[in-house]
Amino acid sequence: METDAIVLRDDLRPGDAAAIRAIVRSSGFFHDHEIDVAVELVEDRLSRGPASDYRFLLADAGGRTVGYTCYGEIACTVGSYDLYWIAVHEEWRGRGLGCRLLAETERRIAAAGGRRVYVETSSRPQYEPTRRFYERCGYTVAATLADFYASGDGKVIFCKGVGA
Amino acid sequence: METDAIVLRDDLRPGDAAAIRAIVRSSGFFHDHEIDVAVELVEDRLSRGPASDYRFLLADAGGRTVGYTCYGEIACTVGSYDLYWIAVHEEWRGRGLGCRLLAETERRIAAAGGRRVYVETSSRPQYEPTRRFYERCGYTVAATLADFYASGDGKVIFCKGVGA
Repeated sequence: METDAIVLRDDLRPGDAAAIRAIVRSSGFFHDHEIDVAVELVEDRLSRGPASDYRFLLADAGGRTVGYTCYGEIACTVGSYDLYWIAVHEEWRGRGLGCRLLAETERRIAAAGGRRVYVETSSRPQYEPTRRFYERCGYTVAATLADFYASGDGKVIFCKGVGA
Repeated sequence: METDAIVLRDDLRPGDAAAIRAIVRSSGFFHDHEIDVAVELVEDRLSRGPASDYRFLLADAGGRTVGYTCYGEIACTVGSYDLYWIAVHEEWRGRGLGCRLLAETERRIAAAGGRRVYVETSSRPQYEPTRRFYERCGYTVAATLADFYASGDGKVIFCKGVGA
């Protein structure tokens, strides 16, 4: 299937917790406790509704959810958003779905009055494709915090201006 | 009273929510919605106990709570801690209580296996005394994110290594 067979939606449904766990797990990139965090954010949104700090954009293909973003305005800021998660099921990688999800997420953030989108990732070599993905999508490195995640595993903070 | 009349404690009690609101408000530094965030972290700890991500260190003087820190290990890191809040009641400012609270907090973080403490503040001129306080306490600027909090209001990230 091509990505034009994809349907994007903002509303989160109870079955999405399991779908998002499968998507995040399929990447092979995340530890179990990180996968748990991804699912906790889904559950926060499902239980608290719009009062939750977390917004979602999901990509469905043929009735199956195959990618998503999770984002939200950062507390105590005016218009700064964090992209908490972006993941595409392994079977759907390499077809531009991540770029499309990210661009649509930025469009929603700008429409809500957002000014900037931040995304954080690891400085480890394993994450070089991730860092290149953000650069291709117009993000630049705003800061690097050495040894943040662990000794030898720094945090790279990317930023992109959106909106007016 | 001198700061040697201060008693420090780690256990949080129900009455501390009101005390911490008064301390944070007395500084005149924080917006109402920021004060609400400070109190929400107290309530999270009170309701969830040790399962909460937030740890507290409180300073009592003559039965009254006059300063505190709120800190915790950052999710998905090994040994990186955030200092979420440090505040001393206006009537107790300028007597070294903030330094003492921060040093004792770092000692607890190191004892728990922590490697680094991060603290974030604003780049605005109003916060120059705050930034100088962290520098006096051995923190250095790890990064600055322009326009993070709002246009013209950047975030300065300080860091200090603690422990072995």
